[in-house]
Amino acid sequence: MQMLRERILELGSVLPGDVLNVNAFLNHQLDTELLVQIGKTFAGHFQSRGVTKIITIETSGIAVAVTTGIELGVPVVFARTTPTPTIGSDHYSASAYSYTKQVRHEVIVAREFIHTEDRTLIVDDFLARGEAVAALTSIVGQASATLVGIGIVIEKVFQDGGEKVRTGGHEVFSLARIKRLSAPKMIEFVD
Amino acid sequence: MQMLRERILELGSVLPGDVLNVNAFLNHQLDTELLVQIGKTFAGHFQSRGVTKIITIETSGIAVAVTTGIELGVPVVFARTTPTPTIGSDHYSASAYSYTKQVRHEVIVAREFIHTEDRTLIVDDFLARGEAVAALTSIVGQASATLVGIGIVIEKVFQDGGEKVRTGGHEVFSLARIKRLSAPKMIEFVD
Repeated sequence: MQMLRERILELGSVLPGDVLNVNAFLNHQLDTELLVQIGKTFAGHFQSRGVTKIITIETSGIAVAVTTGIELGVPVVFARTTPTPTIGSDHYSASAYSYTKQVRHEVIVAREFIHTEDRTLIVDDFLARGEAVAALTSIVGQASATLVGIGIVIEKVFQDGGEKVRTGGHEVFSLARIKRLSAPKMIEFVD
Repeated sequence: MQMLRERILELGSVLPGDVLNVNAFLNHQLDTELLVQIGKTFAGHFQSRGVTKIITIETSGIAVAVTTGIELGVPVVFARTTPTPTIGSDHYSASAYSYTKQVRHEVIVAREFIHTEDRTLIVDDFLARGEAVAALTSIVGQASATLVGIGIVIEKVFQDGGEKVRTGGHEVFSLARIKRLSAPKMIEFVD
């Protein structure tokens, strides 16, 4: 996706620990034109799969999940990682470690919002070690719903998340695949 | 906004402490058709104000801020309430107490994403005691940017946030105004 690559190269920066800082357009400030194009691209790729629900995780997955859900005409469910009193005890949960924030989260989705007959598409901003996707995949499995695929905005292919998820039998469709990062500004894409 | 009222009455519920649970369409599961209508309504109301940036706060403000930003053709900045290593020390901050979650947050926006010449529109899901809006208003002021107005999906008029913000000289445009709540299901609108 050309527009995304341009934004990454122009506005992205690399922080220690292989963190790609995309706060200028994806993680703090949101480029709404780019979000629409991301939604259209995910929707175009997955449109024949009968998706009934998009699943993502707060915070930075929400914006791209919303534009994808708008294009596909389906609702979005965002998993919570912080306790909230409106979600009672009747929820699915899984554990995920955030390497960027260096904390372990409990990832929670209320049972009433994923059903056995749902055909779910997981959408997230990053795929690195695959912790968030693994937690969401576990939750879809706990609900006995179908996982039709995984849409990722930026995949760090030099980390093992993508391989783990694909080995698990799921399709990962990534819009930008990064081979190598080096602070402060070296960003190399696959092909 | 008729569609919003219908969703609130059909799918909302009331929890102790005057918490309106809208997890079925706005705070956990997201009704994307409703989000688009909310965005169009905010954009229609504020379109003549020369808005250059939407400001909101994670988590539940993001979805409605995004659809509003898409309609107005402007970027969104969502303030962070959890520490993230990609935002360095060069940020604006303000403090806000969440009565729903019963925690005090530091609300943070990186300085580089709000400028003096920005004409900002604050968008959020709820206005109750006005803590989040006050923190965002403070941040817009710290940046010496202009605040053109505040768009709220659901205002609890029986709490004092709306009055405080209006007394401060800012326009609040609320799509649903709630006069009274009573658990488990009594929801009364203004007019």
